[in-house]
Amino acid sequence: MSEVIAQLSVSLDGYLAGPESGREHPLGIGGERLHDWVFGLRSWRAGHDLEGGTTGPVDDLMAEWIERPGAVVMGHGMFITGETPWGDSPPFHTPVYVVTHHPRESVPKAGGTTYHFVTEGPEHALSLAREAAGDRDVSLAGGADLVQQFIRAGLLDELWLHIAPVFLGGGRRLFDHLGAVGAGGEKPVAWRKTQVLDSPEATHIRLRPV
Amino acid sequence: MSEVIAQLSVSLDGYLAGPESGREHPLGIGGERLHDWVFGLRSWRAGHDLEGGTTGPVDDLMAEWIERPGAVVMGHGMFITGETPWGDSPPFHTPVYVVTHHPRESVPKAGGTTYHFVTEGPEHALSLAREAAGDRDVSLAGGADLVQQFIRAGLLDELWLHIAPVFLGGGRRLFDHLGAVGAGGEKPVAWRKTQVLDSPEATHIRLRPV
Repeated sequence: MSEVIAQLSVSLDGYLAGPESGREHPLGIGGERLHDWVFGLRSWRAGHDLEGGTTGPVDDLMAEWIERPGAVVMGHGMFITGETPWGDSPPFHTPVYVVTHHPRESVPKAGGTTYHFVTEGPEHALSLAREAAGDRDVSLAGGADLVQQFIRAGLLDELWLHIAPVFLGGGRRLFDHLGAVGAGGEKPVAWRKTQVLDSPEATHIRLRPV
Repeated sequence: MSEVIAQLSVSLDGYLAGPESGREHPLGIGGERLHDWVFGLRSWRAGHDLEGGTTGPVDDLMAEWIERPGAVVMGHGMFITGETPWGDSPPFHTPVYVVTHHPRESVPKAGGTTYHFVTEGPEHALSLAREAAGDRDVSLAGGADLVQQFIRAGLLDELWLHIAPVFLGGGRRLFDHLGAVGAGGEKPVAWRKTQVLDSPEATHIRLRPV
């Protein structure tokens, strides 16, 4: 069966967006620095119609990330903040299932991305995404709330963390409501690292639940 | 001048102790796992009068940690939770300056550790520690509050983070009150990685403020 994978860039103090994140500042104040590691990679640049870029293990990681998903699941908050910057040709190139309370017609975009709006909850969004993805994997794009829900429910097969050597001091925390150890029982407590890479702008840790 | 260095073991979700940490459970529920990386190292074992252990880059890191400090600064909360487990021959082997509101006579222990209690604040504790350390460095033992104060005040020269592949889901956060980016001006926002090592039980990141 296809796997559910998430990759997130996070600060040393655990924020995936800086203070005052929202429609005006999608990544919050200072949050752009979390993503510095990605902009120079050849695979990322190719996906954004840009030439050149560096190759190597971190670029291979990004190429794998771009290659694997056949569909995307995304939270409503992330969609709201991302819709404008992603523009008419979003970088997903697959169906994107947005978990929301607001029903809305699907929105097709250039390059293979279509936004679908799912009001029946995250697990239903995931089943639609799995169906759309076929043999390919499903990427969980974020935001933090949805990642936490997936981790709590044991639905995440791989987590890639890109830890940037930056303190943001505030903003949106990636891991805020996982629930205490042993409180639920359904949450995998320990994860196994399958790969660790380092680049000047981030330390890249791949994990699978034990 | 001697440097101020801190090393902290932290979970993927940013906790340095699990839920319900205190005198009964110094590391909180599940918190022992954060330190799994250290117990098998030869240098750590030697410091605790234990034989054997593994060598290699992570052991070299620990050996450097043991070698460098000539004095320790510690918060009151950490002292309270650690005093009993550290016992009559604590692992510091230097003067330890405890920042506290409660004046108390100094307490000499076996093996070179003496606990001194400083009621004039963290910076005064640091100046006493620097004086005691001479040419050697000062280690900031924790806890979280004191580390945050030192980072905010720009007093930390090196930060070593040992990130264990574990979610604790609650407990004491390492970085909770650093203040928002640009809010204070005195806090270094970006850190430069000087070394990254990986072991099965942790990813080890050494940082210096830029």
